[in-house]
Amino acid sequence: MNNKVYIISGTNRQQAVSLQVAKVYQQEFKALGVEAEIIDLRQLPADYLFSGLYENAGKSETTIDFRKKMKEASKFVFVIAEYNGSFPGVLKAFIDGLEFPDSFTNKKCALAGLSAGEQGAVLAMSHLTDILNYCGAHVLAKKPKLASIGANMKEGVITNERYMKHIKLQVRQLIEF
Amino acid sequence: MNNKVYIISGTNRQQAVSLQVAKVYQQEFKALGVEAEIIDLRQLPADYLFSGLYENAGKSETTIDFRKKMKEASKFVFVIAEYNGSFPGVLKAFIDGLEFPDSFTNKKCALAGLSAGEQGAVLAMSHLTDILNYCGAHVLAKKPKLASIGANMKEGVITNERYMKHIKLQVRQLIEF
Amino acid sequence: MNNKVYIISGTNRQQAVSLQVAKVYQQEFKALGVEAEIIDLRQLPADYLFSGLYENAGKSETTIDFRKKMKEASKFVFVIAEYNGSFPGVLKAFIDGLEFPDSFTNKKCALAGLSAGEQGAVLAMSHLTDILNYCGAHVLAKKPKLASIGANMKEGVITNERYMKHIKLQVRQLIEF
Amino acid sequence: MNNKVYIISGTNRQQAVSLQVAKVYQQEFKALGVEAEIIDLRQLPADYLFSGLYENAGKSETTIDFRKKMKEASKFVFVIAEYNGSFPGVLKAFIDGLEFPDSFTNKKCALAGLSAGEQGAVLAMSHLTDILNYCGAHVLAKKPKLASIGANMKEGVITNERYMKHIKLQVRQLIEF
Repeated sequence: MNNKVYIISGTNRQQAVSLQVAKVYQQEFKALGVEAEIIDLRQLPADYLFSGLYENAGKSETTIDFRKKMKEASKFVFVIAEYNGSFPGVLKAFIDGLEFPDSFTNKKCALAGLSAGEQGAVLAMSHLTDILNYCGAHVLAKKPKLASIGANMKEGVITNERYMKHIKLQVRQLIEF
Repeated sequence: MNNKVYIISGTNRQQAVSLQVAKVYQQEFKALGVEAEIIDLRQLPADYLFSGLYENAGKSETTIDFRKKMKEASKFVFVIAEYNGSFPGVLKAFIDGLEFPDSFTNKKCALAGLSAGEQGAVLAMSHLTDILNYCGAHVLAKKPKLASIGANMKEGVITNERYMKHIKLQVRQLIEF
Repeated sequence: MNNKVYIISGTNRQQAVSLQVAKVYQQEFKALGVEAEIIDLRQLPADYLFSGLYENAGKSETTIDFRKKMKEASKFVFVIAEYNGSFPGVLKAFIDGLEFPDSFTNKKCALAGLSAGEQGAVLAMSHLTDILNYCGAHVLAKKPKLASIGANMKEGVITNERYMKHIKLQVRQLIEF
Repeated sequence: MNNKVYIISGTNRQQAVSLQVAKVYQQEFKALGVEAEIIDLRQLPADYLFSGLYENAGKSETTIDFRKKMKEASKFVFVIAEYNGSFPGVLKAFIDGLEFPDSFTNKKCALAGLSAGEQGAVLAMSHLTDILNYCGAHVLAKKPKLASIGANMKEGVITNERYMKHIKLQVRQLIEF
């Protein structure tokens, strides 16, 4: 296992704000001397639902790289955009195509929830906690709810001080977790 | 809206038992004089994660048919195979590509959970209930937990009498719901 | 079963706003010609945790009245104040002391979530939906999230028009459910 | 904070098997040289729902002792008996009467679920994880599901080897967590 943190930008929506938030996390880790790499679900092969799962899991060359990273990593941040009352299906499909149990057992995860509306992806983070725990990964208690994200980001910067305070604290906690 | 029941076989795994269970439900509806059609997620276009979602939702010819069915239907059965502590990601991706809010508002849903192990997809059904409720669809309280499904099915027939009793009761409840 | 709606004010906190919201619901039912009675958990016997549960359930005279009402009713509204990330323990204890399965099987429930903060009791309502479904009761999909309730009520009146629109719609839906 | 582990026997049912399971955990900690003390919810004051919560929290002499213990401890085990699709209401009421945020912030918790039936308290543990995370406490991913507990315990001993294997592993994980 390596010491990098992998930050999963948890949607494949082209204009997603998730990637911008993932970059904010990346900078916060960098500021504390910790290398962090972003895994952008827009980079999944287009036919991942069929080429990357079940009997085909790990057979596609295009998935070898991120499967290897997820397996070798010891810590993750999941940036989750709320969609239809939970997280996007692509995020669970991504997880469904990883190697088990080595991708998650005893690893440490931090979750951040984004929403256009006021809910802050609360249910999405609850569901993902169930899944990660089932897969053997521990989840930090602190899960920032970045609600109304549109009004709280500008040009890639989170302008809400309370949000940034929670993110900075969570980043430090994940490093020590 | 039409009076057919649509039964979603909630995985795209090729050898999935979900499709067999969907057929059991279909027969039970037929025995009560209700037409039921199966939507098999193995029929999704291979590149659905990219061609069927967000800015592309509804633009692919291959998705027009099932989007139309989901919109026109008034009742659904979701057959859910437990996978990584919840339902397969493809099922949520399927939902993410449907038309809103007309696909779900005030519609009636029944859930059935399958698992190879002992859990019976309990968390998967809880998560999907959250999502369907969020989307405006009502969910029947009775949600059969078809655990250890391998030992309880033979040649497409559910051999566990208790399971069949719950399914028959749930089918009648959905018709009257 | 009778046709009254029973509205459970789901906390025993003395100054709870839940009771005020329960009265708002009561008035909305009355305006549509439907009788609604409030069950106020502050009226539970002080020693309910011991006198009203398990081997003692139903033996205390002070619990006979509300146990009878919950059994005879066919529709409920649960007004839920968020507390420690879910609903107050007293609400589940109340449910734990009821008669099974006749208190809930095939009954219809509506949930409303209150919170001092921004979450609107989302997780609380998800947890209670799991419990009510387990007990056999159907839950309406629409579950108003009355966040920041302090700023949105004045002298027993909900001043937020969007909140009232959702409540009025939910009340009509429960009557027809 | 002290180094004891506190094991909460999460019901006040008189004949509860939870207490027996709590004692199994206590012995496992002892075998590894770690002191563990059981908090038995049957010892709560009879009128705890009214004397121990909200404006009265901490004022009753009978609650001072366990409130102090919960505040000073750094690690907990919650033994949870499934009841009505979740954990008993008394457990949440117990939590509702503790001091915040010092009782839970950054503490480490392990959960074990018991059930008479086959579900193994899966939803109960999911709900409690949401609550503990909300309160700031981290939860171990491994959460043994001790289903059909009646058939798997005899005279205070868990006779199911697989159950004991999971418990022993979880105890070691909590010590290192």
